[in-house]
Amino acid sequence: MSEQVHIDGLQYINWTRERFEKTRDAGLHCVHVTITYWENFRELVANVEQWNRHFLQHGDLIMPVRTAADVLEAKRQNKLGILFGLQNCSPMEDDLGLVQVLHDLGVRIMQLSYNNQSLLATGCYEDNDPGITRFGKQAITEMNRVGMVIDMSHSAERSTLEAIELSQRPIAITHANPTFFHDALRNKSDTVLKALAESGGILGCSLYPFHLKDGGDCTLDAFCQMIAQTVELMSIDQVAIGSDLCEGWGYETLEWMRSGRWTFAADFGEGTADNKSWPKQPEWFEGAQHFNNLAQGLAAVGFDGSEVNKIMGGNWLQFFEQSFTPMQAAG
Amino acid sequence: MSEQVHIDGLQYINWTRERFEKTRDAGLHCVHVTITYWENFRELVANVEQWNRHFLQHGDLIMPVRTAADVLEAKRQNKLGILFGLQNCSPMEDDLGLVQVLHDLGVRIMQLSYNNQSLLATGCYEDNDPGITRFGKQAITEMNRVGMVIDMSHSAERSTLEAIELSQRPIAITHANPTFFHDALRNKSDTVLKALAESGGILGCSLYPFHLKDGGDCTLDAFCQMIAQTVELMSIDQVAIGSDLCEGWGYETLEWMRSGRWTFAADFGEGTADNKSWPKQPEWFEGAQHFNNLAQGLAAVGFDGSEVNKIMGGNWLQFFEQSFTPMQAAG
Repeated sequence: MSEQVHIDGLQYINWTRERFEKTRDAGLHCVHVTITYWENFRELVANVEQWNRHFLQHGDLIMPVRTAADVLEAKRQNKLGILFGLQNCSPMEDDLGLVQVLHDLGVRIMQLSYNNQSLLATGCYEDNDPGITRFGKQAITEMNRVGMVIDMSHSAERSTLEAIELSQRPIAITHANPTFFHDALRNKSDTVLKALAESGGILGCSLYPFHLKDGGDCTLDAFCQMIAQTVELMSIDQVAIGSDLCEGWGYETLEWMRSGRWTFAADFGEGTADNKSWPKQPEWFEGAQHFNNLAQGLAAVGFDGSEVNKIMGGNWLQFFEQSFTPMQAAG
Repeated sequence: MSEQVHIDGLQYINWTRERFEKTRDAGLHCVHVTITYWENFRELVANVEQWNRHFLQHGDLIMPVRTAADVLEAKRQNKLGILFGLQNCSPMEDDLGLVQVLHDLGVRIMQLSYNNQSLLATGCYEDNDPGITRFGKQAITEMNRVGMVIDMSHSAERSTLEAIELSQRPIAITHANPTFFHDALRNKSDTVLKALAESGGILGCSLYPFHLKDGGDCTLDAFCQMIAQTVELMSIDQVAIGSDLCEGWGYETLEWMRSGRWTFAADFGEGTADNKSWPKQPEWFEGAQHFNNLAQGLAAVGFDGSEVNKIMGGNWLQFFEQSFTPMQAAG
């Protein structure tokens, strides 16, 4: 597939008709949307139902993406393709059979942990990372079988390296940056990025200010230079965009993302008590309407047209192509 | 589609590898299997998971049927196709959005009520039938939209007539007989069968002894004469088999089917306190291994080869073809 597509490897938006239209009009053909953080299975189903209502009510603007081909179909129909993903494994509860059920409901990407220890893996804010759990090994095998991508964006280093090693299929880090660019617990070491690259995996570079050098003051040039350096570390086929764009939410949503039901105290995540709310986006990426600025920035640091297309969506499309269908031989 | 297929419009079997093999070897290409009676949504999901394990472990013998084309594919692969259905609407709880979720999980047929009053419709053992409820009207519209068949096998007369009238797509009575053959609350009046026929619906004739004249002593000739008379009342394209074959269960399963969680007392359903357990099947239909006896019996009462093929499966296939895909225009 060499057709040019623009894909954002992660957004968490308070979707309205206006925001669907803005994102479609920005030239995006597919967005990986987060449908749960801490929800259990039944709560996930309620969120899927809400999305089904979006597809009915705004079917002129959006359509579900379940396969790579659906992205191209969305482009043909001038629609925004919506790809379901989970930022945590909580919706599969303690039940391995729910992996296939979630896949049947359209989920194509799932993080094994979100900041904290999960039943499967360790999160990036834990003090200790004992690696992939017994249940986690089973989940990886089952995700491989049904065609659900393992995403380690919010996971800790040892768990991430083990997931790369254990998974029979390439995995993703949908939204994070290298620590060489900005040293944060949520960003990824060279060791992780090299192992990811060697296993055929993919990195979506993030525009969430806490992942950027100089936060909201990061320049487009610095961001694109980081991508160039990451391409050297990995390859031109394995670096993409996962903007982590959050839009339209109040502080209470950020509280839910950070504290879920696991603490009664305030947890400030990447923020601080003094600076706890949503961070200010760089002015060259305040929303989906600025997605094309990235293409210009990439060209400005020396990528040619074909390379820009890969980073802007072609690499995700290629990765989706090999990731979402069931494996032929059952485990 | 004129290809010859054999389809049973309802079975409730305690499935094992041996029973899958027996049913496949009997020449059946598809069975509509009951996956829930009184279960709520989460319990249904657990049953779907069990079926997913069956598909993995016995993939050489069975495969899921989600479309009419899958039945033909099952035949080509010499496998038994498995079509999911619900005998009650309890898994959709009070939540209209679950209709599409159930469809996404493979459910293609759902009864609006099972013996008792449900949130949607009245069951055949209630004293009073006020007809389709407000929620029931919404459910019918949504089932029409997503492509889920309305089944009124265990519903009461007024509700059944209203469902036929309200549904924009033909409905099914997957497993019941005419009352002219055997007058039982579970069987259907000429009025219902004529309305069903006029609306393009379909009847699966039952071999459950409580639905038969003379019960387990009913003759194959009498059963096939009944079919001939029903074909005259409806049409040769609208009568099929829904054997209601139950196999491999103890009395406790029959108790669950009859009493669910709605009574602490024993409810004997079609049986009596003296005769409460599973009834004896006619010796010419003791199990799936006897499915072909029906073809011989139908030929013996005068149906030609093409007509026999329709009743044995062709009519179900035609009905599936028009029933399982979403409607083009959203309601």
